[in-house]
Amino acid sequence: MPRPTAPLRISASTSTRAIHPALTAGQPLRPRVTTSNVPGPRSQSILQDLNRSGDFRTSLVAVDYAKSKGNYLTDADGNQHLDCFGQIASISVGYRNEQLEALAGSERFRIAAMNRPAIGVFPPHDWREILEAGLMKDSVRPRGLTQIFTANCGSTAIESAYKAAFMAYQHKQRGHSDFTAAENDSSLFNSSPGSPSLSILSFKTGFHGRLFGSLSTTRSKALHKVDIPAFDWPAVDWPQLRYPLEENEADNRKEEERCIALVEETIERWQAKSPVAAVVVEPIQSEGGDNHASPFFFQRLREVTRQRGVYLIVDEVQTGVAATGTFWAHEKWNLPHPPDAVTFSKKMQAAGYYHTEELRPSAGYRNFNTWMGDPARAMQASEIVKIIEENGLVEHTAQVGAQLYEALRGLSARHPGLIQNLRGKGQGTFLAFDCETPAQRDELVGRMRNKGVLVGGSGARAVRLRPLLIFSEKELEVFVETLQAVATEIVA
Amino acid sequence: MPRPTAPLRISASTSTRAIHPALTAGQPLRPRVTTSNVPGPRSQSILQDLNRSGDFRTSLVAVDYAKSKGNYLTDADGNQHLDCFGQIASISVGYRNEQLEALAGSERFRIAAMNRPAIGVFPPHDWREILEAGLMKDSVRPRGLTQIFTANCGSTAIESAYKAAFMAYQHKQRGHSDFTAAENDSSLFNSSPGSPSLSILSFKTGFHGRLFGSLSTTRSKALHKVDIPAFDWPAVDWPQLRYPLEENEADNRKEEERCIALVEETIERWQAKSPVAAVVVEPIQSEGGDNHASPFFFQRLREVTRQRGVYLIVDEVQTGVAATGTFWAHEKWNLPHPPDAVTFSKKMQAAGYYHTEELRPSAGYRNFNTWMGDPARAMQASEIVKIIEENGLVEHTAQVGAQLYEALRGLSARHPGLIQNLRGKGQGTFLAFDCETPAQRDELVGRMRNKGVLVGGSGARAVRLRPLLIFSEKELEVFVETLQAVATEIVA
Repeated sequence: MPRPTAPLRISASTSTRAIHPALTAGQPLRPRVTTSNVPGPRSQSILQDLNRSGDFRTSLVAVDYAKSKGNYLTDADGNQHLDCFGQIASISVGYRNEQLEALAGSERFRIAAMNRPAIGVFPPHDWREILEAGLMKDSVRPRGLTQIFTANCGSTAIESAYKAAFMAYQHKQRGHSDFTAAENDSSLFNSSPGSPSLSILSFKTGFHGRLFGSLSTTRSKALHKVDIPAFDWPAVDWPQLRYPLEENEADNRKEEERCIALVEETIERWQAKSPVAAVVVEPIQSEGGDNHASPFFFQRLREVTRQRGVYLIVDEVQTGVAATGTFWAHEKWNLPHPPDAVTFSKKMQAAGYYHTEELRPSAGYRNFNTWMGDPARAMQASEIVKIIEENGLVEHTAQVGAQLYEALRGLSARHPGLIQNLRGKGQGTFLAFDCETPAQRDELVGRMRNKGVLVGGSGARAVRLRPLLIFSEKELEVFVETLQAVATEIVA
Repeated sequence: MPRPTAPLRISASTSTRAIHPALTAGQPLRPRVTTSNVPGPRSQSILQDLNRSGDFRTSLVAVDYAKSKGNYLTDADGNQHLDCFGQIASISVGYRNEQLEALAGSERFRIAAMNRPAIGVFPPHDWREILEAGLMKDSVRPRGLTQIFTANCGSTAIESAYKAAFMAYQHKQRGHSDFTAAENDSSLFNSSPGSPSLSILSFKTGFHGRLFGSLSTTRSKALHKVDIPAFDWPAVDWPQLRYPLEENEADNRKEEERCIALVEETIERWQAKSPVAAVVVEPIQSEGGDNHASPFFFQRLREVTRQRGVYLIVDEVQTGVAATGTFWAHEKWNLPHPPDAVTFSKKMQAAGYYHTEELRPSAGYRNFNTWMGDPARAMQASEIVKIIEENGLVEHTAQVGAQLYEALRGLSARHPGLIQNLRGKGQGTFLAFDCETPAQRDELVGRMRNKGVLVGGSGARAVRLRPLLIFSEKELEVFVETLQAVATEIVA
């Protein structure tokens, strides 16, 4: 039996190159919680007050963003938290980043923020330059995708990509861009042929957003879906893999083949009822529990979708922007043909999707809205990209992630009941593990929070880590120490 | 026959109080177009370039926002346009407003913009203060609605309101908040009972956004809808009124009664198939052609929806924020009971919906997403509200709108074929008229643009005016002169 109190050594062999001190300058050295519980009394009072005019039952603490810094969040009671959840995986380069705030103080940002255009009709004269400095930079744009559609959040990005897929699918069927009178007329009544029976295939336990189209492909939790009308669209089993992946390759391969066969079968079966225009997939199912699949699975998925004329939309809203140790998670699959669309949001702070020329609509105004994105957020994305590239944060996250994985492996060996199914090897800091039960997971997350370390839950009993891209050796030590202390308390 | 070249006098009796000079300081005195056409060569080249990596077939000009000012937009060729379209009705207090840009330069705005929270989980400690300075201020919040849900754009606001309506409707049916096992399980397969057959009733030619739920209630144009799967939801005739409304009251009343009867009939008929949980309605159908209805119609709509336990969602995304001469267009209806929800976006720059306590979800996380709005945009909304209130822009817009209506009435009398069905009396500057044909409308809009005045089209053959809230007597003169000149050219 391992001694739970023995300090855990962090392997020197995977030690990371230090990131630039400016990225973490001024942040606390370690968490500090001075209230007896989190949320403390001041947070509690603020949240109760907010809950009178909106739904804040979901809130953990009220935050003083002005006093937050680097990897650390300061709450309304002055508690300082090491943030390994990052505003549901949406903070990239840390709180109060000086370069970002300098951008915000620039005249061009102020003008962009306060004079928001309808980009589709009156684009800023330098819109292309703004895009090419960040979102469309060669080092950023997913290989093989030459087009971009900008939006305001992850759900609108996903739904606009679905629309593009439906339009392109029908365009292909039709062979030309002219709609028939019957299509035009019936569409206004939401009837066929103008409003066709077409579907998007998604995977069970997947999450793609919570509006009506995206929620119809989300299969994470009943709480997200009950009472909301949904399209009758197919969902297919997500491979249930054994971790660590590298020790279970043969079994996992069979399971992935089984799921790919289901995808093929389902596409075939739905052809008569509501043809599948696109398959949507997360590189790592996040909200649904950090469920992984291998490059083989995604290669096969690309293969079968291409064979059957079905578009493949890779949803990188949560996995994108360096967190998995590559800029996009799907880079690791070495696909011979790119996905048809890749969605982004969260850490990019700007949202939208990249796509092929085939997914351009047949006419203007078909995939359109008032704002069509936000130049201020696109500028912020450029600055985030610049900070990531100047500081090598993709490589940094790959390295520190490997180190964190090893540390967690050590803890898992000590507490095999509490820290199960560790996953995310080779996926940067995008790591997760299961507890024995949902209640135990909640206890672990709560105890971590009371010690000033924020982590997220996902799925039924998973703990998901979503540290910022500036998470480094020092934070790793704090995290591991805290988890070890909590594990000891829970197991004891 | 009127002489088309005679100058049009602007009635002194409706002359407006001058707005504060700071709001329009530095703007051009009149439009200036130096290129032979709009877009000029520089805009054309920029748009062509942009079109290589996205769909910019819809763009009119590339804009230099830094050089735009007050009511005037400067394009990439240096042309200066009087903007009576306002980025599809989303600009409120003018370009390069100094107060707004001062806000953008403040530390609190910079912090909010660059450290965007997941508001639902980690709200800023001063979130309530931010809301109460603007969105939830007593003078702003629609009477009777105590709750707010913040979002990122009009479509997400509308769809989140639909979700709230569906959840509250089912909660009422169920009588409690616990879901059955069958509801939980079936929801993950998008099947009944968890994913119920419920509907939103909307009006023909209405527009409520372009995502999958909102587009299912949008009935404006086939181009918006063809090829996109839609929910089988009911649409009811919108009253076809005769203008001016005050001269056709008896006929219009009959038509409105006919449509209300259709609403009642439809709610009844769909009860067995897909019960109507909510009716959604625009105070003035905008994208669909600026179609009006009277307070009587809306009072009856409120009455019948209440009688039948159906929620009423008033979509003020385009009509809200002072443009119709009251802060909200629905204020003019004097409803005995408020709508259940009122959506906003565009001119507010922040988006979301106000609602009753009944529309609060039964549990946390049911109506939820990552960002849940944007504190930076909420701060901007507060500043916009402050500018509107300090400068009396609601009353100003009511007054200048009345004056503009009278001027257009004069032009309509001179050019009865070209300027038909003038509408919007008593609705601030939210005015529109029809041309004889769609082609003639397009010609009029294009000729106005070539003379440096931007107006929008809507519906089949309508011209919609969406001036900024700082549109004043001077701009009115320019607008009327230009329209008169164009009318003379077209009629000649």
